Amino acid sequence: MRATMMYGAKEVRVEQVPDARIEQPTDALVRVVRACICGSDLWPYRDPQRKETGWQIGHEAIGIVEDVGREVSTVKRGDFVIMPFAYSDGHCEFCAEGLHTACVHGGFFGTGQVAGAQAEAVRVPLADGTLYRLPTVPHEALLGSLLTLSDVMGTGHHAAVVARVSPGKRVAVVGGGAVGLCGVLAAKRLGAEQIILLDRHPDRIELGKAFGATDVVTERGEAAVERVMSLTGGRGVHSVLECVGTEEAMHTSILITRPGGAIGRVGVPHYETIPASGPAFYKNITVGGGPAPARAYIDVLLPDVLEGRIEPGRVFDRIIGLDEVPEGYRAMDQRQAIKVMIKP
Amino acid sequence: MRATMMYGAKEVRVEQVPDARIEQPTDALVRVVRACICGSDLWPYRDPQRKETGWQIGHEAIGIVEDVGREVSTVKRGDFVIMPFAYSDGHCEFCAEGLHTACVHGGFFGTGQVAGAQAEAVRVPLADGTLYRLPTVPHEALLGSLLTLSDVMGTGHHAAVVARVSPGKRVAVVGGGAVGLCGVLAAKRLGAEQIILLDRHPDRIELGKAFGATDVVTERGEAAVERVMSLTGGRGVHSVLECVGTEEAMHTSILITRPGGAIGRVGVPHYETIPASGPAFYKNITVGGGPAPARAYIDVLLPDVLEGRIEPGRVFDRIIGLDEVPEGYRAMDQRQAIKVMIKP
Repeated sequence: MRATMMYGAKEVRVEQVPDARIEQPTDALVRVVRACICGSDLWPYRDPQRKETGWQIGHEAIGIVEDVGREVSTVKRGDFVIMPFAYSDGHCEFCAEGLHTACVHGGFFGTGQVAGAQAEAVRVPLADGTLYRLPTVPHEALLGSLLTLSDVMGTGHHAAVVARVSPGKRVAVVGGGAVGLCGVLAAKRLGAEQIILLDRHPDRIELGKAFGATDVVTERGEAAVERVMSLTGGRGVHSVLECVGTEEAMHTSILITRPGGAIGRVGVPHYETIPASGPAFYKNITVGGGPAPARAYIDVLLPDVLEGRIEPGRVFDRIIGLDEVPEGYRAMDQRQAIKVMIKP
Repeated sequence: MRATMMYGAKEVRVEQVPDARIEQPTDALVRVVRACICGSDLWPYRDPQRKETGWQIGHEAIGIVEDVGREVSTVKRGDFVIMPFAYSDGHCEFCAEGLHTACVHGGFFGTGQVAGAQAEAVRVPLADGTLYRLPTVPHEALLGSLLTLSDVMGTGHHAAVVARVSPGKRVAVVGGGAVGLCGVLAAKRLGAEQIILLDRHPDRIELGKAFGATDVVTERGEAAVERVMSLTGGRGVHSVLECVGTEEAMHTSILITRPGGAIGRVGVPHYETIPASGPAFYKNITVGGGPAPARAYIDVLLPDVLEGRIEPGRVFDRIIGLDEVPEGYRAMDQRQAIKVMIKP
């Protein structure tokens, strides 16, 4: 079959690889109907060091079950499924608490442990715990939004949950990439009164407004902090969704948080430390977040997708075939696309 | 009157100063019945740089109202009051939310802004919002525990609240100073099932066990992490109360936190940064905390003190007169006393 191989140093190739197949009795084999490229895939892509051997990348997919191992009982051949970016057994103490990304038997797709999903098919470990089965094959118009439940919408929702967004709150979303845009949508869905999007790209800003952003701040650094303060009566926001993953974004987040407020950070952090003293302490700010338990959030978000109340699939502004994946990476890397969907 | 003056470089003196008096119509003048020395007072004490001019230090007190300004309506001469370590107006948006340490008109006693409480008397700004009036003058046996509501017990409780302690949870308290010991008591009070105290001083350990610690870890660094892991089935604890304020304590706290768990930090941080990547992110750990809204917590904690269900006053293992305050600082600095009470 064909699959996407990542080599770093902006080299990504679609290659012929051995067919994905059942290896464990708890596996399922899923034919990929739609996959996509994640902002986090750009980190290895941008890594200046080129690897001799690549690895199969991609961790977001929806698809049709083609085969299952003999111990799999909740999905069967022909089922339409959402594949969250982490696999999980569904019954360990962490899964039971809804933190599937800490599953004691779990792991992540496309990281080298388990082959990635930017491919014609993907082997899904612990299929009973991992896959979310839909009762019917959905209409094509819903595919994009369903695909976001694999990661990006669940991740935006996680940022909002960790940042304690609730009705009436003032919220800032730092970074209007696909995660940040889903964060806007999640904040709106959770009842935020004010949603300030910090970004400077017109295409993102336009979609952010459509998703519920009430204010946009295009400044950066100190000027951005001043703008948010002036938009919030000098107090700052209750909740910050840090959707960039850089040191500058975290510093800005701390400065714009209201005393007693919370920051939810979900971008894989490309910084080593969070300021400990100064405003972070004296304002009693809470900082949390990490890999989103997307599997748990499907239960929460799916009804709103199926009934059309949210359309997170609008973050996809380009659809490509599998062969065009290298071009998809290039477009996202150069910010010519917000998020690229792959139709293998 | 006599008051304690801090000069840094281990120089603290009891000096004759102008009498505390009403300066604003919202002030109260409180005769100090009991004050005490805080672990945070040791930071300026240990500052190697000696200051030419000292400042009146101390921020914890209970006392009797001697006089009030003309706009004060909730306390009057003769009332017995608890003075929280921060003054606050009691009605701004932050006070209304229970975060009195973010009061827009507030501030801190003994920091140079407003004179400190290790003195015969103290001027209390915003008396209506700041002071907590008791209906009667309490029995002498209760004074120590009431005094802890001024800061240390509220601070331990804040750590537990921020660390999301609730019934059945596994908790670790890093540091068995007075705040940590009150943290043990707070965790017990909130229903923690397991309370692991990390400390190595026999006197603190003994009191920690009396307060509800179920396990004690005397190791430090990696060995401490291993011990906590072995005490928690390899998972770590749901809640960590970081009651030291050093980088090592924060690192240990992150390593012993269970995925999805929370760290409450309340010691004034003497470190600049919190690790952002690695386990802090991948375990979805939440880090929060700051100056405790002790004023808000008096409502919560006072009934348990008055009815004898908690005895946080046991953290005081030495009582001294005002003239002995320099010796009290020396004893706490050298860990010969857990916490020193002052009877002016």
